[in-house]
Amino acid sequence: MVRPRLVLFGDSITEQSFRPGGWGAALADTYSRKADVVVRGYGGYNTRWALFLIHHIFPLDSLAPPLATTIFFGANDAALLGRTSKRQHVPVSEYKNNLKTIVNHLKDCSSSMVIVLITPPPVDEEGRERFARSLYGQDARKLPERTNEMAGVYAGYCVELAREMHIPCINIWSKMQETEGWQKLYLSDGLHLTPEGNAVVHKEVVETLRNAGLKAEHMTYDFPHHSKIDGCCPEKAFQ
Amino acid sequence: MVRPRLVLFGDSITEQSFRPGGWGAALADTYSRKADVVVRGYGGYNTRWALFLIHHIFPLDSLAPPLATTIFFGANDAALLGRTSKRQHVPVSEYKNNLKTIVNHLKDCSSSMVIVLITPPPVDEEGRERFARSLYGQDARKLPERTNEMAGVYAGYCVELAREMHIPCINIWSKMQETEGWQKLYLSDGLHLTPEGNAVVHKEVVETLRNAGLKAEHMTYDFPHHSKIDGCCPEKAFQ
Repeated sequence: MVRPRLVLFGDSITEQSFRPGGWGAALADTYSRKADVVVRGYGGYNTRWALFLIHHIFPLDSLAPPLATTIFFGANDAALLGRTSKRQHVPVSEYKNNLKTIVNHLKDCSSSMVIVLITPPPVDEEGRERFARSLYGQDARKLPERTNEMAGVYAGYCVELAREMHIPCINIWSKMQETEGWQKLYLSDGLHLTPEGNAVVHKEVVETLRNAGLKAEHMTYDFPHHSKIDGCCPEKAFQ
Repeated sequence: MVRPRLVLFGDSITEQSFRPGGWGAALADTYSRKADVVVRGYGGYNTRWALFLIHHIFPLDSLAPPLATTIFFGANDAALLGRTSKRQHVPVSEYKNNLKTIVNHLKDCSSSMVIVLITPPPVDEEGRERFARSLYGQDARKLPERTNEMAGVYAGYCVELAREMHIPCINIWSKMQETEGWQKLYLSDGLHLTPEGNAVVHKEVVETLRNAGLKAEHMTYDFPHHSKIDGCCPEKAFQ
């Protein structure tokens, strides 16, 4: 009777996924009474720091490992060296290697777990600039701490790893840039997601889970639908 | 390292609480990285049917019972006898007794659990009428299946039980009616909540949990904040 779990593991874009219009909350609604959506998002984290968490969040001896896990890192790994967010920077080859360690750990937890990699989203450098100036005014950093080009390099390594490991991957960096005006439509501060950006992630995650066999409508309903309960003999429905 | 859980137990108003603007999703965001919000909402259920679930959802031998649970039933119990939703009707004295059984079961699970009762929301009979006609046209039921007056009777019994059992109670039936235009502002179909109605529930639940000692800002953060991680020696932050 334990309801299966879908775990969302990632950085701030995962942590904030239950804010209004968030992709995590929407996913919880999509799998309502079928699976629990569990947020494990850690703002500011890169894949190097994420490695310290995996044995705690995904213990190898768990009796009920997640049915599926999304891994959504890279936005911080791709912060540029020598700029204001350099502390979070992780070289791209190490980023790929860290993702591989995470995926292998999840496979060790459960050979049937659906593991979905998500690339970092695109970066709108002008949006980041406006955001920095709104916070720090004249003291804002002069040079961008992240570029869209560099996020794209990390996205490419993420896609490559997924191909090598035969697991699904959502290239949200590419996907979002297919739509004209993605900079303001999908990103609130040049990096984090607007409700419209969240909707894109939600749609892609649902499609990916469905393609991996996790269709909500085919999953077992948690306890009988109320219409199946006989008002006179309710106990029959619960036997 | 197990994150505490806040369980939302109730009917459709709980089940739908992760839809856009939902109070459950908002609560998950309020307790982000402090507690997991777990939805156990069952559309159409009354307290009589809820009793079949409590031993499954809240096993007595759980090693990690919920830190807090909201109990939000009554909207279906208060459906009128002899009308279209009569199958869901539960007499008000039995409703109170069933709530008492649920509360006592939760106390048996954990003597420290914060247990919050929530009354049924008010009913806008005109809104229900419009909703029925939009679904069934001429075939819609002629007489209301729920009335605001009857919902108020159930709310009164819920408040009374909370007082007798010394547990907090949110009288959402009264609270919502304090605001002019509550009928359309807070209710989408005369019974279920609009985003504004969800915001009222969210605010009341947070306030009640805070008064019971569960202030998010005083709860332990799950793993270090990224600003506490030394870029050169990250392992120190995780010891």
